[in-house]
Amino acid sequence: MPASELDLIDAFLAPFGLDRSSASAPGVVSGPGDDCAVVRPSRGLSLVLKTDAVVEGVHFTMPPFSPEDVGHKALAVNLSDLAAAGARPRWFLCALGVPKTRFAIATAARMARGMARLARRTGCVLVGGNVTRAPGWTLTLFVAGEAKHPRGRTGARPGDAIVVVGKLGAAARGLTDLPRGKRTAAARAQLRPEPLVDAGLTAGSLPSAAIDVSDGLLRDLGHLCASSGCGAEVEVEALPVARGASLDDALSGGEDYALLFAVPRNRERPFLARLPSARRIGRFTAGHGIRLLQAGLPRRLPPRLGFDHLG
Amino acid sequence: MPASELDLIDAFLAPFGLDRSSASAPGVVSGPGDDCAVVRPSRGLSLVLKTDAVVEGVHFTMPPFSPEDVGHKALAVNLSDLAAAGARPRWFLCALGVPKTRFAIATAARMARGMARLARRTGCVLVGGNVTRAPGWTLTLFVAGEAKHPRGRTGARPGDAIVVVGKLGAAARGLTDLPRGKRTAAARAQLRPEPLVDAGLTAGSLPSAAIDVSDGLLRDLGHLCASSGCGAEVEVEALPVARGASLDDALSGGEDYALLFAVPRNRERPFLARLPSARRIGRFTAGHGIRLLQAGLPRRLPPRLGFDHLG
Repeated sequence: MPASELDLIDAFLAPFGLDRSSASAPGVVSGPGDDCAVVRPSRGLSLVLKTDAVVEGVHFTMPPFSPEDVGHKALAVNLSDLAAAGARPRWFLCALGVPKTRFAIATAARMARGMARLARRTGCVLVGGNVTRAPGWTLTLFVAGEAKHPRGRTGARPGDAIVVVGKLGAAARGLTDLPRGKRTAAARAQLRPEPLVDAGLTAGSLPSAAIDVSDGLLRDLGHLCASSGCGAEVEVEALPVARGASLDDALSGGEDYALLFAVPRNRERPFLARLPSARRIGRFTAGHGIRLLQAGLPRRLPPRLGFDHLG
Repeated sequence: MPASELDLIDAFLAPFGLDRSSASAPGVVSGPGDDCAVVRPSRGLSLVLKTDAVVEGVHFTMPPFSPEDVGHKALAVNLSDLAAAGARPRWFLCALGVPKTRFAIATAARMARGMARLARRTGCVLVGGNVTRAPGWTLTLFVAGEAKHPRGRTGARPGDAIVVVGKLGAAARGLTDLPRGKRTAAARAQLRPEPLVDAGLTAGSLPSAAIDVSDGLLRDLGHLCASSGCGAEVEVEALPVARGASLDDALSGGEDYALLFAVPRNRERPFLARLPSARRIGRFTAGHGIRLLQAGLPRRLPPRLGFDHLG
């Protein structure tokens, strides 16, 4: 029996407490029941927009991912970018690609359950979406947040501290636990990464730039350096390496969804007071390129820097 | 040689006159070079959000679609919904699923060319996106527009005129021309549908409700009736049937991207003065369901009402 589009939409909306006639969340004029979503942005704030996708066979397989894990992760990876920008999550749309399978409706409902729990916790409201046939499950989310002064990649200056919030290497380590079917803390970091939305908001306007660590510390730090026109020096002893992860996992493993901040010298103290779990791992430098230091001596960069999405 | 992600992004951005450090369009604080796009919404306007996807093997194959056609259509189907809502297109993000193929970069660049031309004509600015590996080409767009009083599906009242802007049935007819390789007007309606953005803006606040005809007239009119809690009576002689299309094409064929308005009786005259190409095809009625009239007599509904995206 092929899944009917409307049955699937109803099943997907239910965990959000929505149906096709809902338009009830604050600031939402028109919700998932209409062709377009209509929302009222807050006066004086900038709008911060992000899209990211998770694709079956590329970013996940089920198992080891449960449908709830997939739904959670699809939203989490988008919220992580809003967190880096310092934006408060407001609204999101979910474009769903649905393969031909007998259990499409039940699977979609379970994905929605995982997504809805995270959405509720972070105050991000589902306002629309789209359903289409696709070769495999594909969840492409569009997330909109608001911020007075959103942070980007371009503001880091030589001398700024490189500060990490969150642990590094757990998700890479999780990849080795997953095939053994163990739901370890590391496996959970891979299956249900936690976007650091509160930390992103708490950091406020203290950082000069930020990025989330989705493609590996060295690669994302490299993006930040390239956009800001500076280099970086990282002390490997200072890295917040997750329990059980190797230094290489921490340097090059993707999908940690930690936050990486550039913090000007005179704001380091208030920054660390606001976010005591933050770790200073080095400093931005003049010039370009990343240098690793171990016991004060140069250390070679690992051969694989991070994740290329078409590699 | 696998396509590198950054090479592909550069090739995709070039037709838009952008590169990864661009942030230059009006109202755009931060563009495709950063993790999030940052824009400034206009004070006092609502934000109208839409996502729609086109998937290789589901919505198109290449050929008969050229990559430029695919890029155009991916944006067009989203803009058509903004047109129905009466929103001015402002910004969009493009999430690209890229299959393993030798010509990925060249194909992406051609898709971008078709998309960029339509974006420029409609004033919609690319501000961000995402690239991921996928089983086939997938273009999931997220479009944001602005409007003072966006129209939705829910405002139609018994007695309102049912008014169509645009032709019906051409895209369905085009499906029969495509396999013969003929780039007829009907084939072009299928390959390069034109979103009626200007008509949507010109209609202003005169309509009480609107929808775009993407899934077939009867199906979309049915959506509008269901959401507004009324029925409809349609005179088939009044339908603006495209040249060469059958009445069934016009009633049930999808992808025409005409606009369907509900217009209160006392606003019909100014509406038709503003949009002389508009055709009144019937009236909304009390009760529910759609009745067809031919020469004043009831006519059976066609067996297939329109398009189910998972059917």
